[in-house]
Amino acid sequence: MKKVDHIGIAVSNLNDVIPYYTDTLGCPLLKIEEVASQKVRVAFIDAGNIKLELLEPMDSSSAIHKFIEKKGEGIHHIAFGVENIEQRMEELKKDGVQLLNDQPQKGAGGALVAFMHPKSSNGVLYELCQKQ
Amino acid sequence: MKKVDHIGIAVSNLNDVIPYYTDTLGCPLLKIEEVASQKVRVAFIDAGNIKLELLEPMDSSSAIHKFIEKKGEGIHHIAFGVENIEQRMEELKKDGVQLLNDQPQKGAGGALVAFMHPKSSNGVLYELCQKQ
Repeated sequence: MKKVDHIGIAVSNLNDVIPYYTDTLGCPLLKIEEVASQKVRVAFIDAGNIKLELLEPMDSSSAIHKFIEKKGEGIHHIAFGVENIEQRMEELKKDGVQLLNDQPQKGAGGALVAFMHPKSSNGVLYELCQKQ
Repeated sequence: MKKVDHIGIAVSNLNDVIPYYTDTLGCPLLKIEEVASQKVRVAFIDAGNIKLELLEPMDSSSAIHKFIEKKGEGIHHIAFGVENIEQRMEELKKDGVQLLNDQPQKGAGGALVAFMHPKSSNGVLYELCQKQ
């Protein structure tokens, strides 16, 4: 893992939270997009060396909705940037890491993403993220 | 906030977890140190553009011990690197952000640190961190 691409943060309502990041913390808003496959609306915040990915559930079937119901709003995952996600997934599986996805999924910005089970990572949900 | 310095991760036992980061994820261990003032033993992991700060409670009075008891092991905080922590604390207070520390505290590596209340940040515990 060469670098952290972004930190995912679960929020109930993007519009309520974005001004805190842009005005109070002084971090620019890069873009907002819908990721229908994961049922989230996503705001990317520029934190200098990495991005903060604010995740708002689009409906109650979203994993982010379930996360907020169970744990409240807060930090959801850490995403490592990778160059060859399928190779990295194979290597992790060989090392005994449990993955939540068999195949890479389409994530925000058209990236290929896959999640590692928090049980393999002492409670941390890590994502692998390969940019287009 | 110009950049994220590190992500703090609460773990029960550093020695059990470090090989996962160094061997499985391939991220080098930078150093281990005790921060007596915060009752934690800390391992810094090099994740390329930022550090992962693994935090093991030194005893049951540690905030990290209480975090793990309540929520389990996992991501604890995000630390912004700042240049003038006292000025930044004043600005945040003026903007209505609740701080958990009145004065900067001594953190790992001799850094000056202060925490922002998660209630001010939609459930995220943010740290301000000024390196020596």
